Amino acid sequence: MNTFGNYLRFTSFGESHGVMVGGVLDGCPAGLVLDMEAINDELRRRRPGHSSLSSMRKESDSVEFVSGLFQGVTTGAPIAFFIKNEDCHPQDYERMKDMFRPSHADYTYLMKYGVRDYRGGGRSSARETATRVVAGAIAKQWLSKWGIKIQAYTSQIGHIALEKDYKEYDLDSVAANPVCCPLPEKAMLMQDLIEQVKNEGDAIGGTITCVIANLPVGLGSPVFAKLQAQLAWAMLSINAVKGFEYGSGFQCVDKKASELNDAFCMEKGRVRTQTNFSGGIQGGISNGEDVYFRVAIKPTPSISKPQNTVSVQGEECVLQAKGRHDPCIVPRAIPVVEAMAALVIADAMKQRLTEQ
Amino acid sequence: MNTFGNYLRFTSFGESHGVMVGGVLDGCPAGLVLDMEAINDELRRRRPGHSSLSSMRKESDSVEFVSGLFQGVTTGAPIAFFIKNEDCHPQDYERMKDMFRPSHADYTYLMKYGVRDYRGGGRSSARETATRVVAGAIAKQWLSKWGIKIQAYTSQIGHIALEKDYKEYDLDSVAANPVCCPLPEKAMLMQDLIEQVKNEGDAIGGTITCVIANLPVGLGSPVFAKLQAQLAWAMLSINAVKGFEYGSGFQCVDKKASELNDAFCMEKGRVRTQTNFSGGIQGGISNGEDVYFRVAIKPTPSISKPQNTVSVQGEECVLQAKGRHDPCIVPRAIPVVEAMAALVIADAMKQRLTEQ
Amino acid sequence: MNTFGNYLRFTSFGESHGVMVGGVLDGCPAGLVLDMEAINDELRRRRPGHSSLSSMRKESDSVEFVSGLFQGVTTGAPIAFFIKNEDCHPQDYERMKDMFRPSHADYTYLMKYGVRDYRGGGRSSARETATRVVAGAIAKQWLSKWGIKIQAYTSQIGHIALEKDYKEYDLDSVAANPVCCPLPEKAMLMQDLIEQVKNEGDAIGGTITCVIANLPVGLGSPVFAKLQAQLAWAMLSINAVKGFEYGSGFQCVDKKASELNDAFCMEKGRVRTQTNFSGGIQGGISNGEDVYFRVAIKPTPSISKPQNTVSVQGEECVLQAKGRHDPCIVPRAIPVVEAMAALVIADAMKQRLTEQ
Amino acid sequence: MNTFGNYLRFTSFGESHGVMVGGVLDGCPAGLVLDMEAINDELRRRRPGHSSLSSMRKESDSVEFVSGLFQGVTTGAPIAFFIKNEDCHPQDYERMKDMFRPSHADYTYLMKYGVRDYRGGGRSSARETATRVVAGAIAKQWLSKWGIKIQAYTSQIGHIALEKDYKEYDLDSVAANPVCCPLPEKAMLMQDLIEQVKNEGDAIGGTITCVIANLPVGLGSPVFAKLQAQLAWAMLSINAVKGFEYGSGFQCVDKKASELNDAFCMEKGRVRTQTNFSGGIQGGISNGEDVYFRVAIKPTPSISKPQNTVSVQGEECVLQAKGRHDPCIVPRAIPVVEAMAALVIADAMKQRLTEQ
Repeated sequence: MNTFGNYLRFTSFGESHGVMVGGVLDGCPAGLVLDMEAINDELRRRRPGHSSLSSMRKESDSVEFVSGLFQGVTTGAPIAFFIKNEDCHPQDYERMKDMFRPSHADYTYLMKYGVRDYRGGGRSSARETATRVVAGAIAKQWLSKWGIKIQAYTSQIGHIALEKDYKEYDLDSVAANPVCCPLPEKAMLMQDLIEQVKNEGDAIGGTITCVIANLPVGLGSPVFAKLQAQLAWAMLSINAVKGFEYGSGFQCVDKKASELNDAFCMEKGRVRTQTNFSGGIQGGISNGEDVYFRVAIKPTPSISKPQNTVSVQGEECVLQAKGRHDPCIVPRAIPVVEAMAALVIADAMKQRLTEQ
Repeated sequence: MNTFGNYLRFTSFGESHGVMVGGVLDGCPAGLVLDMEAINDELRRRRPGHSSLSSMRKESDSVEFVSGLFQGVTTGAPIAFFIKNEDCHPQDYERMKDMFRPSHADYTYLMKYGVRDYRGGGRSSARETATRVVAGAIAKQWLSKWGIKIQAYTSQIGHIALEKDYKEYDLDSVAANPVCCPLPEKAMLMQDLIEQVKNEGDAIGGTITCVIANLPVGLGSPVFAKLQAQLAWAMLSINAVKGFEYGSGFQCVDKKASELNDAFCMEKGRVRTQTNFSGGIQGGISNGEDVYFRVAIKPTPSISKPQNTVSVQGEECVLQAKGRHDPCIVPRAIPVVEAMAALVIADAMKQRLTEQ
Repeated sequence: MNTFGNYLRFTSFGESHGVMVGGVLDGCPAGLVLDMEAINDELRRRRPGHSSLSSMRKESDSVEFVSGLFQGVTTGAPIAFFIKNEDCHPQDYERMKDMFRPSHADYTYLMKYGVRDYRGGGRSSARETATRVVAGAIAKQWLSKWGIKIQAYTSQIGHIALEKDYKEYDLDSVAANPVCCPLPEKAMLMQDLIEQVKNEGDAIGGTITCVIANLPVGLGSPVFAKLQAQLAWAMLSINAVKGFEYGSGFQCVDKKASELNDAFCMEKGRVRTQTNFSGGIQGGISNGEDVYFRVAIKPTPSISKPQNTVSVQGEECVLQAKGRHDPCIVPRAIPVVEAMAALVIADAMKQRLTEQ
Repeated sequence: MNTFGNYLRFTSFGESHGVMVGGVLDGCPAGLVLDMEAINDELRRRRPGHSSLSSMRKESDSVEFVSGLFQGVTTGAPIAFFIKNEDCHPQDYERMKDMFRPSHADYTYLMKYGVRDYRGGGRSSARETATRVVAGAIAKQWLSKWGIKIQAYTSQIGHIALEKDYKEYDLDSVAANPVCCPLPEKAMLMQDLIEQVKNEGDAIGGTITCVIANLPVGLGSPVFAKLQAQLAWAMLSINAVKGFEYGSGFQCVDKKASELNDAFCMEKGRVRTQTNFSGGIQGGISNGEDVYFRVAIKPTPSISKPQNTVSVQGEECVLQAKGRHDPCIVPRAIPVVEAMAALVIADAMKQRLTEQ
């Protein structure tokens, strides 16, 4: 299924080494003056090749809109756009077409569909997430009308982790270093670790923390459309994500309720909570506090070390991959995490409007 | 939104202290001879009051089917059922009707809807999950035709955790103790911890691990309907769940790709993986290995200790709750986790059938 | 599929001769004080047995709500309800269980599902529409807050047809006669015709015209969710409906554009149209004029004349039906037509709210 | 909403005078070798400018696929495609940008969205239906694997109507004349009528009859997804369609049940019906007989005669339209009717596969 969302629906299409990737955003409010520069900025954050830490594939990744805009303003019609694929080296994959790359989707796609676009993973490639970044950038612009702000950052690479709460960091400083970590001394260590892993022809994972601020009360719906459930769906739909937790997350496990309950209090005439272990969500519905969550990103399985595998013909063999791989995709995943969060929040906001 | 699933759709209804809770399961295959005893067994596992570890609310929880069955066989019509609410003490809640219980949905529901059924949390109560257990039990029966087996167990309570892989335990022994932990010595410690927390008028959390065995290759769909994304949605829709991870999960973060990649090999003519850090899913699609995941369950926020809060009128006050609360809901959540997993897998199985 | 609607979703369940029929209405706005009397009035309009023109099956058809209401007010939770089945004579059907009734769903259900609830058609019976009437009655109450009014009437029975535009009749007088025709002299003729057909052991069809007044501009959405497309879906989902037309309908065929185009004009500062061949919808979106449409209702295929058919065993045979059949279901279908129209309009209204 | 279908989902995008129109077909079975020539043939049938009977706008309408195909075979990934817009004369519309064209979507779009792409109707233009033809052509190719055949023809233009049942005509001869009528002598009369109307600067409507042959038993689902309800939705979503009827349609009204019931019989070991007033559908499910239906097409409201209307500023004025208009769009609508029917049937076929 290539569509996400109920009230604001995003459909993506395109393969890694096809002509282009693209998307259709349906249900976007009319009358929004799109800031194209801001959309391209988001794409730039995701783009590979802009530091030694990522794949050397060059993609200019400029987006072209072909529907839903008139004189720069959204019209209520579906917003369709493309990003052309450039600098493809399909020949890098030609020799791999008969082998299943370990921990990739090669085997499962072939079994599910009987055919497989083996060029760079085809539809299973993270290339597809570029389209989500565009859709998310549009959603962010709409959300910013309500002052809603979505910011993610690298909170861990390998064993190097930030230890404090997101409130202790300046999230506006995230762009200052290529690993997108708000604590410069840790950022240096992370960068060194990635370089080292890269030299080994290997890859490393990490975690991303995302904070959504200035949410109104009332987003999300009971039972199956709980805001955290929608966020979890969105995050686990991102290629390398292996886990999701919000608020106190897995750390809730060895705490007592009396330590975790968020006491209500009054502040400037508004109901607030004294702590925020709930992660801004109670009963699946936003309570006006910050929503924050954390995702685990596995190391990309594309490495240049030789690996045991099996051929399409069912024979055991050794894969020695070529191609331009990322030693760590965590920084590039940050705008994708933000984009998917933006799509979820915008969807919930549209749902919320039906109640008024 | 009170409906879950695309191909097999489950709709639930009912409030904690209303007449009943119930559900409608639409899309269930026709011709299935329902094993009523098995359904009631599942409900019994979720039922409170059967040990000193859980709430003392008595619920016989017998399910009554009113649609979709003819002479004990499913007909393809929607399967509707109820579970009557019994032993309600709405008066326990009468005195709380003007206060927002901390870390409950009282405040957010009132803000979202303008009205609130304050009796026991109304729709936000975990009472609703009984209906999921019934739907999941039906899904399990259908899945068992393919040999698919879904088993969950308590893997941690407070700081007491199982340390080994699920393969090291006998999952069929889970029912032998009230905490549903397959390692008897740990089970004893967990039980003691819950008793102690109960005596303090407090509550404690834990983790549940769930294993899905004998899955065919090809379940789940690319991009937004990845199997892990659907499982994450399902799990985070369960009331107290704060986190989800599958396969290597959050532990992937400080591993290298060369340590995590699952090498393919041939075994008895079938493509298998030598390890299973992928958790049985690659590119969002099952690869035939066991799918396994873990969820974090927070302590239920209902405790008898006094807590600071705010009244509906916006005044700070102290809540001294009565009611019959669970010191640890982890064991009771196990059949709910299995039920939601079963609904996801059955939905994916129906999707898979469209491809043939 | 037993669910209708996107923003306001109605799920129905239950079979003709099971314990009950019922439904779940999800997405109904909170804070609505339900007028139970009005809901029961709608059911009474659909109920058989209240005149010699319809089946003699007695059904008290009182509705029982079990979810979504608290102290008589909707809470935003799913509204679930039942109508118990009474006065069932399943034995009337026992002898038909081995035969396919002509122009009924017996054959297709058995082929699709492999099993069949043969008691009175089971799920295929028009008994199911009683649940739609309840859901529609709730939708109507919400719509009446905006002054929206939905009224249907019998415009033809057999060859006896009303010849004028709906504006020429007093639609509030429809309830004055059992055929629900606003023109008393035609009503008499229709009634006579039905009596005559009844005496022959046969059945007759007719048309229903429905008018939706006081709609705001802007309901319905371009392309696939055009308001007329949603109405057509809704109407053709009603058991005996064979055709749908709106505005100029099939009569547009031999008119020229210059005769059919609705010239815009200004009236009291508002944009209006001088004529309304468009049926209040342009480009799929309401323009503020009355929406009106007409549906064709076939004679119910249940008759007492002997009919050639085939047995479940594949042998040709003669069916001599018993049971209490309607010689003309048109009057009883009127509240169903209104209910489905109300569900469509309420859904479109909720969609419209997302745009503001 | 710009997406149609549940199991096979089609999303369209693009405006009449934008860069292109396009679509995404999601859920198309993998392994289908697409016959590009056949797709282009379908587009050619819809294309204007190929006879004196239609608009003179020239559109080469060649389709370009950018996703979902690998080496000419569908991969299971979403199939995305474009059709570039050519020969646009947006200046024809520049002078109309301040006026609401009667019986067009100008007024309702502006009221709904606050902005309007006035160039040729933007999104409301029938130009969008070219994308449906492509998607439908793919669906047809898949359906042809089961021998299913979908054929539509002009059954009436103005007052000139075919009088016999579709079985009396050779539907393969439809392409032989520009009005797509299988009876040559009537085709001549229709053609003359269109020429005459064209000379008056006016437009005329008609009806299209569509026949779906070789359907298996079991397509369509009870209650809200009845096959006729899905077809009605699909047809009424086509721009100029004002009515839909299937089987006996509106003619059922003055027939008796005993005249309309389709007696079952055995034929070559198969259950058949002696007549087919049911239109191949009973209880919403196909019974193996031909499905046939008829739609009413209004005259396109774009005419060159002067018309009274209102300006965007709310002032009454006279519109004297330019532009290249169709005096009769019925022939061009035929491939669109077939395409939407194909999407409905393919969706139902995929649903049917889930039951096996």
